[in-house]
Amino acid sequence: MQRNQSSSFYLGVDGGGSKCKAVVVNHNLEILGSAIAGPANPCVDYQLAIDSITESCGRALAEAGLSKEQHRIELGLALAGVNFDHVFQRVNEWSHPFHSMRLITDWHAACLGAHEGRDGAVIIVGTGSCGYVCVNGQSKSFGGHGFPVGDKGSGAWLGLQAMKAALLAKDGMGPPTLMKELLCTSLSCKPEDLAIRMVGASSAQYAQLAKTVFAANKQGDVQAAGILNEAIDYIEAMAHSILEYGPPRLSLVGGIAPFLMPLLNHRLREHISRPLANPEMGAVYSLLKNTKT
Amino acid sequence: MQRNQSSSFYLGVDGGGSKCKAVVVNHNLEILGSAIAGPANPCVDYQLAIDSITESCGRALAEAGLSKEQHRIELGLALAGVNFDHVFQRVNEWSHPFHSMRLITDWHAACLGAHEGRDGAVIIVGTGSCGYVCVNGQSKSFGGHGFPVGDKGSGAWLGLQAMKAALLAKDGMGPPTLMKELLCTSLSCKPEDLAIRMVGASSAQYAQLAKTVFAANKQGDVQAAGILNEAIDYIEAMAHSILEYGPPRLSLVGGIAPFLMPLLNHRLREHISRPLANPEMGAVYSLLKNTKT
Repeated sequence: MQRNQSSSFYLGVDGGGSKCKAVVVNHNLEILGSAIAGPANPCVDYQLAIDSITESCGRALAEAGLSKEQHRIELGLALAGVNFDHVFQRVNEWSHPFHSMRLITDWHAACLGAHEGRDGAVIIVGTGSCGYVCVNGQSKSFGGHGFPVGDKGSGAWLGLQAMKAALLAKDGMGPPTLMKELLCTSLSCKPEDLAIRMVGASSAQYAQLAKTVFAANKQGDVQAAGILNEAIDYIEAMAHSILEYGPPRLSLVGGIAPFLMPLLNHRLREHISRPLANPEMGAVYSLLKNTKT
Repeated sequence: MQRNQSSSFYLGVDGGGSKCKAVVVNHNLEILGSAIAGPANPCVDYQLAIDSITESCGRALAEAGLSKEQHRIELGLALAGVNFDHVFQRVNEWSHPFHSMRLITDWHAACLGAHEGRDGAVIIVGTGSCGYVCVNGQSKSFGGHGFPVGDKGSGAWLGLQAMKAALLAKDGMGPPTLMKELLCTSLSCKPEDLAIRMVGASSAQYAQLAKTVFAANKQGDVQAAGILNEAIDYIEAMAHSILEYGPPRLSLVGGIAPFLMPLLNHRLREHISRPLANPEMGAVYSLLKNTKT
């Protein structure tokens, strides 16, 4: 891959609902500094997102011994929520303090990272879920419509399904499930207080409960197995849709990925490759010449 | 039913996520005034709830030509959300301006209203859904855990399912459905903008979309029929659980009830009776002597 051999330094940022990660590299892609700051989803809180981005960038640059006044810093900024036009526009108009800025979706950055800037596809299963494929300069996304309307198979979705099953069991209107006891342990409450504990809960809070589905499934819980089957069906359908576009590589990334991976059909697993780099490096790749985006 | 023949006037209030209705009656239960004000769900906005209650009461009393300074006004206050202990406690500590106040859940008021203060049961299917049975001084609720974790079969749940099906169809990951076109018409947007239109939407906003499921079902849409079957299964299971408690009467109430009623199993429909009065009258019944609550 040909790179801009100028005196630029590249700052890659990946921001989402729970945290914002920054990395700073030189033109040889050697990592000079990195940092993690708080939430950076501009859909949820625009100013907090800008503050978290600023903080993570400042700390990564400080670790690298660089300053935006003395060095030419190019920012590759990947954010959740900028798939929505009006959110993209607002962030893109941010009067950032760097030499330049390129704004992309967090999906795109995950894809660029997983395949070191080359063509490929990703299925991201973290707090939310979505698919993204980028081949021959064409890209397409699948799902990723947010919680609770989309994001099937994601941590938030798994947590919500666990809670639904537990409440049906508590009411005697659904089969018993170990998830009820596991959720009560996880939330330190009695079954009758489960619902109140989740009033107005965020997707990140539901995602915290996803582990109860995997734990109950391991102990043979039929309801948990049913939830995981539905998740797997969705992720597999997404993978098949993505593979029709012929991406050279496909990676499964995100916090829930390691738990779902062993449950996928073994023939599909053969099509899935290890991600080569993380999304903040993907944001760096978006800045480099000859990177197909 | 024996009534308190004092000089009291009874103010019945039923408050929920979208509106607050008040009625004022004399000791013969003759309606002297009524009013409707804005949202009154103390879980969502405590101060707004208090303001809406105050406004609806003030206007109903004014219509009746009564004043809380010159007349003995007893308030029966039925509110959504007070099934949660801490919410009940907070509202119950409100320094209301009336002679006395009795606070009950909106479910309880719907049940008291539907059976004129006598034993019975209700299934409420409006923005949310839940069941409530009151027999021989014992009561039990079913479901009603709130959106999105509970409230299956409700308007909000139907709207959410419609949106999920439409987004799967849009992504080519689910079968086509008329609901996609109907939702686009309803929200005046293109399919690719459906998700953004519902970011952070309230249960009331989702409930506005429930009509698309019934409309699509009428036109033979298989996906819509599947959603309605799931709703009906849940409501029927709830009805059977409730009937085990032997309530003398069972009513189906709420904005979605008339649409679901014709879809219920005809043998179950025979067990369902017309509600005799509305929930704000139910709140009045909660104040009367010899009412089993």
